[in-house]
Amino acid sequence: MSQFNEKTITRKTIFQGRIIDLHVDEVELPNGKKSTREIIKHPGAVAVIAVTDNQKIIMVEQFRKALERNLIEIPAGKLEKGEDPLECAKRELEEETGYICENMSLLTSFYTSPGFADELVHIYVAEGLRKKEDSAALDEDEFVELLEVSLDEALQLVKEERIYDAKTQYAVQYLQLKNAVR
Amino acid sequence: MSQFNEKTITRKTIFQGRIIDLHVDEVELPNGKKSTREIIKHPGAVAVIAVTDNQKIIMVEQFRKALERNLIEIPAGKLEKGEDPLECAKRELEEETGYICENMSLLTSFYTSPGFADELVHIYVAEGLRKKEDSAALDEDEFVELLEVSLDEALQLVKEERIYDAKTQYAVQYLQLKNAVR
Repeated sequence: MSQFNEKTITRKTIFQGRIIDLHVDEVELPNGKKSTREIIKHPGAVAVIAVTDNQKIIMVEQFRKALERNLIEIPAGKLEKGEDPLECAKRELEEETGYICENMSLLTSFYTSPGFADELVHIYVAEGLRKKEDSAALDEDEFVELLEVSLDEALQLVKEERIYDAKTQYAVQYLQLKNAVR
Repeated sequence: MSQFNEKTITRKTIFQGRIIDLHVDEVELPNGKKSTREIIKHPGAVAVIAVTDNQKIIMVEQFRKALERNLIEIPAGKLEKGEDPLECAKRELEEETGYICENMSLLTSFYTSPGFADELVHIYVAEGLRKKEDSAALDEDEFVELLEVSLDEALQLVKEERIYDAKTQYAVQYLQLKNAVR
């Protein structure tokens, strides 16, 4: 399949932002024709599937400016520069929800939008959850609301398009599958 | 939760490309502080879960410039302006794989990267698949290689990180779940 590679002729950096960079590459296609590729560089992210002892999935509701609406998602966040994804997952879980866990393990990783972006999301599963007593530890710049929902409630939220993003629908389906093969 | 909305103060359009646009919004946060949001506008996309009569999942391998590597994915493509997602799904399946189907139904839709992009992907399930006799109908500007893999092979490709994107891992998990509840 290496014959399908696209050779970079030039790269033009359009934007370097706080979170994303945008490049436009002029490329040579496998048939010798030229084209352009619009490419977003992103630091990557983590997300956490966290189910409490009484079988509630921990979610957060927050406003998403790109969509101009709220979404209900599993806890998640961007990687800081050089940050270990596992440490990032623990940090985001605690900052967004006030929960800490005994065990955090990597379930899978995936690119979210390989057609135009290099964002890679690492999905962790947290076990042995415990709410920190000092809930004032929540990050004061995180405007999120904590929700704890059953699997049935999560499936209903998918139907209502309030859960409406890839990582969270993947997480809900993972928990359905786990129940089904139990 | 409406108290968490971010008010747009200004919007600056940085880039308008063939596929994506980039805006930077200056926003007022719920606590009155100001911040910026880097936002990618995308036309949306479709993807197709297609399983042949002999239980093979139809996939395509292609080079992804944003990642500088190949990925194996379910057939997918961007929506043309004003295009009906269902028609787009049928078109992409035929153009990328040479397969047509009797039935195509919407399984779910999800935002891929709600933190910075408005790309919405519609996932369809195709049934009653039939390979067109005239396979020269494949789009000559699509540099993709057709693969037909079993569910076990797909799970192995996930482990090997050759299947490595959200929509395809969602699709593989969907087929696992379907098998498990059968």
